[in-house]
Amino acid sequence: MGSYPALAFLLLFSATLSSSCDGGKVLVYPVDGSHWLNMKILVEALHSQGHQITVLRSSTSWYVSEFSPHYTSITITQEQTQNIESQDFMTSFLKRSIEIRRNKGTIWAFVEFYRNIFNMMGDNQKVVAKLIVSIFENETLIKELKETRYNIFLTDPAFPGGVLLAHHLQLPMVFNVRWLFNGEAHFAIAPSPLSYVPQLFTDNSDKMDFFQRINNMIRHSILAYMYYFVSNPPYQAVCDHYFGPDVSVMSLMQGADLWLMRVDFIFEFPRPSMPNVVYIGGFQGKPSKPLSSDLEEFVQSSGEHGVIVMTLGTLLSNLGPEISEIIASAFANLPQKVVWRHIGKRPITLRNNTMLVEWLPQNDILGHHKTKVFVTHGGTNGIYEAIYHGVPVLGIPLIFDQYDNVVRLKSRGVAEIVEVTTLDVESLTSSLKNILDPEKPYKQNMLKLSQLHHDKPMKPIDSAIFWMEFVMRHKGAAHLRTESYKLPWYAYHCLDVMAVFVAFGVLIIALVWVSCRWLIRRLISTTKTTSKSKNE
Amino acid sequence: MGSYPALAFLLLFSATLSSSCDGGKVLVYPVDGSHWLNMKILVEALHSQGHQITVLRSSTSWYVSEFSPHYTSITITQEQTQNIESQDFMTSFLKRSIEIRRNKGTIWAFVEFYRNIFNMMGDNQKVVAKLIVSIFENETLIKELKETRYNIFLTDPAFPGGVLLAHHLQLPMVFNVRWLFNGEAHFAIAPSPLSYVPQLFTDNSDKMDFFQRINNMIRHSILAYMYYFVSNPPYQAVCDHYFGPDVSVMSLMQGADLWLMRVDFIFEFPRPSMPNVVYIGGFQGKPSKPLSSDLEEFVQSSGEHGVIVMTLGTLLSNLGPEISEIIASAFANLPQKVVWRHIGKRPITLRNNTMLVEWLPQNDILGHHKTKVFVTHGGTNGIYEAIYHGVPVLGIPLIFDQYDNVVRLKSRGVAEIVEVTTLDVESLTSSLKNILDPEKPYKQNMLKLSQLHHDKPMKPIDSAIFWMEFVMRHKGAAHLRTESYKLPWYAYHCLDVMAVFVAFGVLIIALVWVSCRWLIRRLISTTKTTSKSKNE
Repeated sequence: MGSYPALAFLLLFSATLSSSCDGGKVLVYPVDGSHWLNMKILVEALHSQGHQITVLRSSTSWYVSEFSPHYTSITITQEQTQNIESQDFMTSFLKRSIEIRRNKGTIWAFVEFYRNIFNMMGDNQKVVAKLIVSIFENETLIKELKETRYNIFLTDPAFPGGVLLAHHLQLPMVFNVRWLFNGEAHFAIAPSPLSYVPQLFTDNSDKMDFFQRINNMIRHSILAYMYYFVSNPPYQAVCDHYFGPDVSVMSLMQGADLWLMRVDFIFEFPRPSMPNVVYIGGFQGKPSKPLSSDLEEFVQSSGEHGVIVMTLGTLLSNLGPEISEIIASAFANLPQKVVWRHIGKRPITLRNNTMLVEWLPQNDILGHHKTKVFVTHGGTNGIYEAIYHGVPVLGIPLIFDQYDNVVRLKSRGVAEIVEVTTLDVESLTSSLKNILDPEKPYKQNMLKLSQLHHDKPMKPIDSAIFWMEFVMRHKGAAHLRTESYKLPWYAYHCLDVMAVFVAFGVLIIALVWVSCRWLIRRLISTTKTTSKSKNE
Repeated sequence: MGSYPALAFLLLFSATLSSSCDGGKVLVYPVDGSHWLNMKILVEALHSQGHQITVLRSSTSWYVSEFSPHYTSITITQEQTQNIESQDFMTSFLKRSIEIRRNKGTIWAFVEFYRNIFNMMGDNQKVVAKLIVSIFENETLIKELKETRYNIFLTDPAFPGGVLLAHHLQLPMVFNVRWLFNGEAHFAIAPSPLSYVPQLFTDNSDKMDFFQRINNMIRHSILAYMYYFVSNPPYQAVCDHYFGPDVSVMSLMQGADLWLMRVDFIFEFPRPSMPNVVYIGGFQGKPSKPLSSDLEEFVQSSGEHGVIVMTLGTLLSNLGPEISEIIASAFANLPQKVVWRHIGKRPITLRNNTMLVEWLPQNDILGHHKTKVFVTHGGTNGIYEAIYHGVPVLGIPLIFDQYDNVVRLKSRGVAEIVEVTTLDVESLTSSLKNILDPEKPYKQNMLKLSQLHHDKPMKPIDSAIFWMEFVMRHKGAAHLRTESYKLPWYAYHCLDVMAVFVAFGVLIIALVWVSCRWLIRRLISTTKTTSKSKNE
């Protein structure tokens, strides 16, 4: 009998818990471009749970719509500037990247590769950092944001404007994250030994030989350099101006309550983590819907051979006529049907087994049982959809993290990679035939990977919602977050303690030496005195 | 239409998944004593899911019963030896520990403290390591174990006999773990910066000043020493004998598929983790059941003042008459009723507000709404039950991890600590009054902590079951487990890469120096020649 009130008390607990986050107010500061596609999924999921979402967007935004049934937007007026995600910028960046890649292995290519990245990051950071200044200077807006009393602040710290705003508004902060402006996000919060944690742009797996580890360390140092001298300064200037010189952008970032990491370890190599990291990799996954009747008809016409699906992402679909012809010829060699998302001139060598489309219901066609191979540039959205549906991959990586992404798939035995710079009909055809070969383990491996991906106590998107609501309910997640980032760097790495030990060691050695010398001299002098006195 | 077969395929997946672990075969190699109390909970949970469990036990086992409705046991005959968890051993170990603690702060106490621990560990390791030899030498048993084709091997690596056996049988291995034979389990797999990860026996929190960090490093080194020279050798000898000199006990341990860690971050300080660590801290938690009528009557008679519950664990209940009298007198000063689990002579100063019992339905009484304070030695079972039910704690830590445990509670503002060596009526009374004071935040803080503990997507015990079945379904969890432990230590820490960089740096400096010297000499000689020729 005595336990009933206690039970009632517990029930009351849960009632309070579940009601306290109903209709939470969420302020979202997204990163534009493909990052927004990810963020939108979380926004829609939050909206479906009855939360009110406000999205801060720039008037020059290309992806983030002003109007949506899922959120209210606040638009910050900005002058039109070249955006990192614009088609023109991307086409020229891609051209330059392929030119550099063609000279891979030379010092020139190595230097130019990073110069290309640094330029892009530097220019972009300056533009994006301006947005946060516009917000800080807009007193009416800041007042309005403060008065709304949001429950959480959701942002993608790839460009950390949101991090500064969350600090200014003193709101619990949740990240939807994979990349920071200095590389993979884990590097900012979890100790990440470079001996088995591959750095961006290395094409390394988690098993590296000596020279790969040297490469890993060098590229890590270059990214650290980029952070200190290219990516960070525009934000740090804002930080210094508004919060004083003692606050660093990195420490604000490390102070986030929760990191919803777009990572799943069926894809990413295992690496150290922290208690406030929640893995939501594959949160975009959902069952496929039926195809439109003409697409379904085309797909069905493939018979037992099945279908190859090809797309190189939103911004990279046009690789130029030369490469398109090679791809078309390779497809022409195969008995499969092909659905190819292609923008630009129709290749001459195209056979009628290939259907060109300007847009593709990617998830639906990947979920179709006739789909045999997914040819992709290696963006994470597509990769996770392929894993969700168990479709092996042919990767043609082009820029950014795409090489590293397909390396991960290859190491799991579910993908082949072809180099865009040395692409020819023969190698492409043979790679495709390899993956299609039922004797080869690609399909089997991908089914196993898919099985592991699905075998979770909770769907990644539900996990994301649970933990965002957790932060709303408890006004943060302090108990999951280390505050070690507040330590000076030498204290964090115990260098001060080491210094004391070394000093102590040296002191002891010195003492022993001095004592020994003194003793020996004493002994010698005693011996001399004795022999003298004997002689006398 | 095209997506239905794909959906059917997915459903087939889940069906295969859920059926493939029905009636899994689990081999359990427990650690005796209080560790078995934890393991038993997992065994019972697995049994309730329809799995067949076999438990390996020693004929001298004190806790692990031969017969149980939940498992079949295999008994290994061993000669009777003194067990670490026996009452006699514990009483003498405790006496020695308190004597040492009384001299805390002296060099003698520091040395004796570790000598006491080393002796205990050393003696015990030898005894426990013998058990695994008995098993390895029993060919019939090994054959039987191999032929049964178990799906997983569940063990507590505090004494790593099971780790060796799992390797011998080549079974996927799951740990139920908090301690290894060299300290906290995280230290073996996750990089753990000593600047904010407190080591065992330091009484440090995760916020340490300079001297606390020095202390942390020293105590860490002592535990490393204990590992290399006391705890590990008996097992390494077995390992060398059966698996050859290239296999280390530590690497076998680091190769476990899954670590079910008896940790929750409402209690433990946040620290780096790994993807194959599942946190099940508080998995013993369950709602309270009604009390027996006499106990309920006594508890109810406390009126508005409520009840204090006191127990010092299974093995430590008798602290001797002196301390018992102090405790009894303190209780006599209070208006509350007290339920005290006490073995030994009835204290003379006991008032009738205190009921002595030989056994306590701990979880049920902690879940009673009249319970106001829990007086405990700081064992984790009791602590998690107190957190589960939201009861603030008065800690009287005695040995092992108990000091560190109550330090964690104190840092959360839910406990006070009294030193058993300086215990007096006044300080005990005032500590109890403090916690009971409704103006003080202990109860509030504990309710918040309890709320955080309950606010999880999944109950810890369900999480444990899910992941054990996951390992059964997939014959391991390779994708969650780093294999970095296979690297040599200098490669893991990138020392070889560093050496190359340093050598390269030195080479460049040397080259520059040599070139400069050559240039200067050349210049000087030219000047001299010129001035000479001018002079001539």
